[in-house]
Amino acid sequence: MSASIPRSKVNDHTPEMAQARRQFVEQQTNTCLSHVGRYSLPAEETMGNIEHFTGAAQVPLGLTGPILIDGEHAKGEFYVPMATTEGTLVASYNRGMRLLRESGGVKVSVVDDAMQRAPVFAFNDAREAREFGVWVQDNFSEIKKIAEGSTRSGKLRNIEQYAAARMLYLRFNFTTGDAAGQNMVSKATYIACEWIKENYPQALKYTLSGAMDTDKKHSQLNTLHTRGKRVIAEATIPGDLLKSLMGVSPDALLKMRAISQVGNFMAGSINTGAHSANGITAIFIATGQDVANVAESSAAVTYADIDDHGNYYIAITIPSLIVASYGGGTALATQRECLEMLGCYGKGKVYKLAEIIGATVLAGELSLSSAILAGDWVDSHEKHGRNR
Amino acid sequence: MSASIPRSKVNDHTPEMAQARRQFVEQQTNTCLSHVGRYSLPAEETMGNIEHFTGAAQVPLGLTGPILIDGEHAKGEFYVPMATTEGTLVASYNRGMRLLRESGGVKVSVVDDAMQRAPVFAFNDAREAREFGVWVQDNFSEIKKIAEGSTRSGKLRNIEQYAAARMLYLRFNFTTGDAAGQNMVSKATYIACEWIKENYPQALKYTLSGAMDTDKKHSQLNTLHTRGKRVIAEATIPGDLLKSLMGVSPDALLKMRAISQVGNFMAGSINTGAHSANGITAIFIATGQDVANVAESSAAVTYADIDDHGNYYIAITIPSLIVASYGGGTALATQRECLEMLGCYGKGKVYKLAEIIGATVLAGELSLSSAILAGDWVDSHEKHGRNR
Amino acid sequence: MSASIPRSKVNDHTPEMAQARRQFVEQQTNTCLSHVGRYSLPAEETMGNIEHFTGAAQVPLGLTGPILIDGEHAKGEFYVPMATTEGTLVASYNRGMRLLRESGGVKVSVVDDAMQRAPVFAFNDAREAREFGVWVQDNFSEIKKIAEGSTRSGKLRNIEQYAAARMLYLRFNFTTGDAAGQNMVSKATYIACEWIKENYPQALKYTLSGAMDTDKKHSQLNTLHTRGKRVIAEATIPGDLLKSLMGVSPDALLKMRAISQVGNFMAGSINTGAHSANGITAIFIATGQDVANVAESSAAVTYADIDDHGNYYIAITIPSLIVASYGGGTALATQRECLEMLGCYGKGKVYKLAEIIGATVLAGELSLSSAILAGDWVDSHEKHGRNR
Amino acid sequence: MSASIPRSKVNDHTPEMAQARRQFVEQQTNTCLSHVGRYSLPAEETMGNIEHFTGAAQVPLGLTGPILIDGEHAKGEFYVPMATTEGTLVASYNRGMRLLRESGGVKVSVVDDAMQRAPVFAFNDAREAREFGVWVQDNFSEIKKIAEGSTRSGKLRNIEQYAAARMLYLRFNFTTGDAAGQNMVSKATYIACEWIKENYPQALKYTLSGAMDTDKKHSQLNTLHTRGKRVIAEATIPGDLLKSLMGVSPDALLKMRAISQVGNFMAGSINTGAHSANGITAIFIATGQDVANVAESSAAVTYADIDDHGNYYIAITIPSLIVASYGGGTALATQRECLEMLGCYGKGKVYKLAEIIGATVLAGELSLSSAILAGDWVDSHEKHGRNR
Repeated sequence: MSASIPRSKVNDHTPEMAQARRQFVEQQTNTCLSHVGRYSLPAEETMGNIEHFTGAAQVPLGLTGPILIDGEHAKGEFYVPMATTEGTLVASYNRGMRLLRESGGVKVSVVDDAMQRAPVFAFNDAREAREFGVWVQDNFSEIKKIAEGSTRSGKLRNIEQYAAARMLYLRFNFTTGDAAGQNMVSKATYIACEWIKENYPQALKYTLSGAMDTDKKHSQLNTLHTRGKRVIAEATIPGDLLKSLMGVSPDALLKMRAISQVGNFMAGSINTGAHSANGITAIFIATGQDVANVAESSAAVTYADIDDHGNYYIAITIPSLIVASYGGGTALATQRECLEMLGCYGKGKVYKLAEIIGATVLAGELSLSSAILAGDWVDSHEKHGRNR
Repeated sequence: MSASIPRSKVNDHTPEMAQARRQFVEQQTNTCLSHVGRYSLPAEETMGNIEHFTGAAQVPLGLTGPILIDGEHAKGEFYVPMATTEGTLVASYNRGMRLLRESGGVKVSVVDDAMQRAPVFAFNDAREAREFGVWVQDNFSEIKKIAEGSTRSGKLRNIEQYAAARMLYLRFNFTTGDAAGQNMVSKATYIACEWIKENYPQALKYTLSGAMDTDKKHSQLNTLHTRGKRVIAEATIPGDLLKSLMGVSPDALLKMRAISQVGNFMAGSINTGAHSANGITAIFIATGQDVANVAESSAAVTYADIDDHGNYYIAITIPSLIVASYGGGTALATQRECLEMLGCYGKGKVYKLAEIIGATVLAGELSLSSAILAGDWVDSHEKHGRNR
Repeated sequence: MSASIPRSKVNDHTPEMAQARRQFVEQQTNTCLSHVGRYSLPAEETMGNIEHFTGAAQVPLGLTGPILIDGEHAKGEFYVPMATTEGTLVASYNRGMRLLRESGGVKVSVVDDAMQRAPVFAFNDAREAREFGVWVQDNFSEIKKIAEGSTRSGKLRNIEQYAAARMLYLRFNFTTGDAAGQNMVSKATYIACEWIKENYPQALKYTLSGAMDTDKKHSQLNTLHTRGKRVIAEATIPGDLLKSLMGVSPDALLKMRAISQVGNFMAGSINTGAHSANGITAIFIATGQDVANVAESSAAVTYADIDDHGNYYIAITIPSLIVASYGGGTALATQRECLEMLGCYGKGKVYKLAEIIGATVLAGELSLSSAILAGDWVDSHEKHGRNR
Repeated sequence: MSASIPRSKVNDHTPEMAQARRQFVEQQTNTCLSHVGRYSLPAEETMGNIEHFTGAAQVPLGLTGPILIDGEHAKGEFYVPMATTEGTLVASYNRGMRLLRESGGVKVSVVDDAMQRAPVFAFNDAREAREFGVWVQDNFSEIKKIAEGSTRSGKLRNIEQYAAARMLYLRFNFTTGDAAGQNMVSKATYIACEWIKENYPQALKYTLSGAMDTDKKHSQLNTLHTRGKRVIAEATIPGDLLKSLMGVSPDALLKMRAISQVGNFMAGSINTGAHSANGITAIFIATGQDVANVAESSAAVTYADIDDHGNYYIAITIPSLIVASYGGGTALATQRECLEMLGCYGKGKVYKLAEIIGATVLAGELSLSSAILAGDWVDSHEKHGRNR
């Protein structure tokens, strides 16, 4: 017989229940959870964030920066907290931040913003589905009113339509204020769909997700049409600075890029950059984001050029950065402190946070790609020389 | 002028240095990091895991299970720790675990194992690159010896070759024991490449990554040829149990799948399942994995069938699950406790851990897909009936 | 010294010039082009279709049908000409057409229609590009007027926007009447872009294709947003008819589909069906389409279901079928005859042609997938039995 | 009642039967097929190439060249026949050939060669499938012997394995001599599978295609592992020649490439070049290839660089060029003449043909990308200047 995890019917988010569960599992597995129980976050505040609250994972936190940002919301220098267990990650980002700082900083912009729920409606045939599509367009303002009735901050921006067989796949795009908004848009879309069903009875049936929202999954669709924030970080690095700080020339970096793009393409990779997931994940853990969204947020598109003065222009576009400065895990003890350290806690701060993450990611790209290159992309003699 | 983060030349991983950094950033940003400083993990043990150690993020930990597993390494019931801030995640996985337990458990198998570093070599033309490919094949055993000389547990399994233009992209596949192994294979591949350069001087230049290892990035190549462990979790759910516990029939689930697969395909999604990233991320944080590998590990392939007795067979294949029971963050305070809770700490445990994660992911798939369906995939009358 | 291909400055599209070129190449290559010179198409009519006209390739033409079509434009029975050199192709499609005829025919619908040219505009930074995007939206009606000024039948439907780095990629979607329209939309978009440059001087530079039109190339974007016509062909096959004519049951076909979808997904295939390119290519050659568009037109999405009466519903969605009933090669000698055979020559016929192709493709899908299954998907005993 | 297409039980491939079918369809559709009936290819020779032979499509044939090729099989100058109805195609390729000729020619190489059939085997669970994979490896030489017993020219090179759920997807790679080989490998694989079934009875069932051969469909797998020939065409264009002949500088072309690669990536395109499908299709029609293979053959990877002397190096890699110099449509009247014109008819010529096609494709890439650039990638003043 399996032993059941202890559970309180009165209040399950208490230090006592957490302790009871630790004792239970210690007994069941003959282990000792002494560190897991040494947390300072108030147990009751985890309600809505976790069930069967048992303690806390302690993830080492490192500090990087300052990174100099020329955003529309984040302006000036920032110290960026990163929670990770991967050695060199913090050092590497920090090194990139120095380069960017000495280059005059990162320009970063949020150029699009959308969170989706994508129901699918089934019909008797493709024509009925097509007809429904026309109706949805014609009734958009009514659908919008209904959908937005369930939420204070969610706004229905538009509804994409994708047709296949006798189905019509809709993709509701919302802006969601300072929250990541997945739950908000699910509820709003559900209410809209129920209204549609009453007002368009030919819709035989629908399901709230037809897999075109691609939640917790990368998709090309996300790269095209944005999920979360579409963030573009740009910088222009003086050629001699790149050379002196990173040991590589703009030209060599650009040549390596061309070769890497071929490898990327053959591999069918979803990211033409180096390792944006590293920085995103570390900040996500530190600041209470839904870390599973690294699945979507790890896609990226890079672009580089050398200008007439020999400067290296580099940009990284993150098409699906899913972030929140409010809701989710943002109010938890250490998470909130880390957001506050960035001036990004609470209402009206989500774009600022997105910009800081975008800028940080660019720092990491420059650092790693230079490192790979400085070590390897050399002809035989240079190489042997350095190795001796 | 930017203020620099405090740094010790003697020993940077001390509580004192962490405190100095907290004070520094508190001052710089006018904030209070009281929770970030309340950690129990020994500061000195974070060396190799983080730089600029400043404190810890506390991520709420919930308990799920027991999940009944029929693995080759994990056998019996397990309580699975999940660190997350996303409400309902733990409850949802727990619900799926119950279904699986009552169905007789999850069969889970690791069917492949490989960690890559993928250098690229450039030549004068495609023919020289092709010739080099032949040489690499002919000299594989020598290259293997060289590569393995730098590591105790890394074994060079094979070298894939991909040709484009005048480049030859190699993809070194290692098994890496109980470690995730990214650093180990980088070093081993570097040493092998240096040896190659000496012994094959026509190789004009190489770079250690030609972007076909797709580290911290999903790629189709990873789905095809595995990165980390390829884990397959399978279960057969009695039809009436599915109906009674989840409120859906096998036939309805299968029909929804077919519709979702079309949506998935049009979206260009990398995962035909529901949300494997959720479970993987939560266990990764809890057990000290490199969480940025969610980028690769979030890919999945699902398959379902109904047998002659009306049972629902479901399988999820995770082609790139990157896990370690040793090295990385596995020895940290809470992380180690969580691994111990699973009987997965240390040497010889990595497959067991991979199996437990695979099984957990399957629980989450069943839970979410049933939930979506039970709520939505209903014809008008049933729906209105339930809503009243 | 290379000998130059003969060329007339007066009129290059004459039988004499064709003969001169044949003689020239016969001499140069020591061959005899007797068949290449035996064509009946009037040489002068190839102007606009080919340069250096030298003769004709004779591609064998087979006849299939009748296929019974319930389209919105194609109604009734059609005999479909197919030009191919691949044995069994005609027989296979013909077999599928019989099945469909006995099942009551194919319902086929064109659900979307768009031809693209996708210029890219470059700016100093991402914000300027974003600002330009707003301007494009605000000035859409003016841009539309300008673009449509250069063409009688091209209508600018909408302009998609995709942002990356400091670029804004636009995707102009036109309807193009009965022509495939690639040239028409190039010209119209060029004129629009030139107007934009004059009226939006901050646009530093643009190029007429930023590679998001994906002409002569498949892309996920085409699958999502249609290039050419989006055609959906559907049919419901009685279970016993499927069994008696094709030797397979609906259930077996559906089970094989599920297994194939997994293979498709792992392979990263752009078509979840069997071989739509076969039928499309054969009709394209016969009817004077731009056959290189098979690159785009070969993408497809299939979906199948079994209804309560055991009937097999199957649909194929061709998201990028590029066809013309007017312009291009449609007026050439044999090509026009083949279009006339279908009642699809000239103005107002393009949707009819698209429907006939879609229906034909469905016939081929049913035929091949049944054939694969009937031969193979059998347990050991059945197999050996049949083989003896 | 549907009228049936006339069919002879004695000999269906005769001029009389073709005429009977023409008369039949003329009557049924009230049309006149006078040109379709004016063919010179011997009707009886179409047996094996088409069923219901009815006549021929006449596709205009243009001549390009000479193209100067430095292949391993094709050496010297070639006049390339192209069958198309798309105006400017021949002129554009011809222009690129001139540039290449003046640059010293194209170096082209076939670097890989494989044709696939990819059966799938199903088991009770993933472990059985894994075990089967080991058995297949262990018994490769026996399987090879069996498979090769059914064919004179097919050689089984290797068997790839892909695992998902309880299935094992095998991918048999053959070399197929001078034939494209799809039928040859189907038969050989079928025989091997039947042998496997007898000798490995635990294989519950198999189907001859599990959709990982991706015949007549592009897949990422084809790009990675080659389907048909992997052909790489390379050239180095002197910078001033590029400027004088095409009106563009190497630097401008390279900059446009970088921007296009971003567009390509966002679109999810399968080809980073301009329009390889155009040249491939036109030669395929002219030389009796299976034109539907444009679906696979239209994938391509391009790469460019500028060397120290300002020369533009460009390479295009066609990973799945499916060609034959023997079998299929190669022996038909005009098709054979076109092959002979290239010195590519019959045994031992397939690599030569592949090289010629690869070289031609490169000519088209240079021509189109220069044309796009010369017309558009200019700042306002230059543009207006040229337009006046």
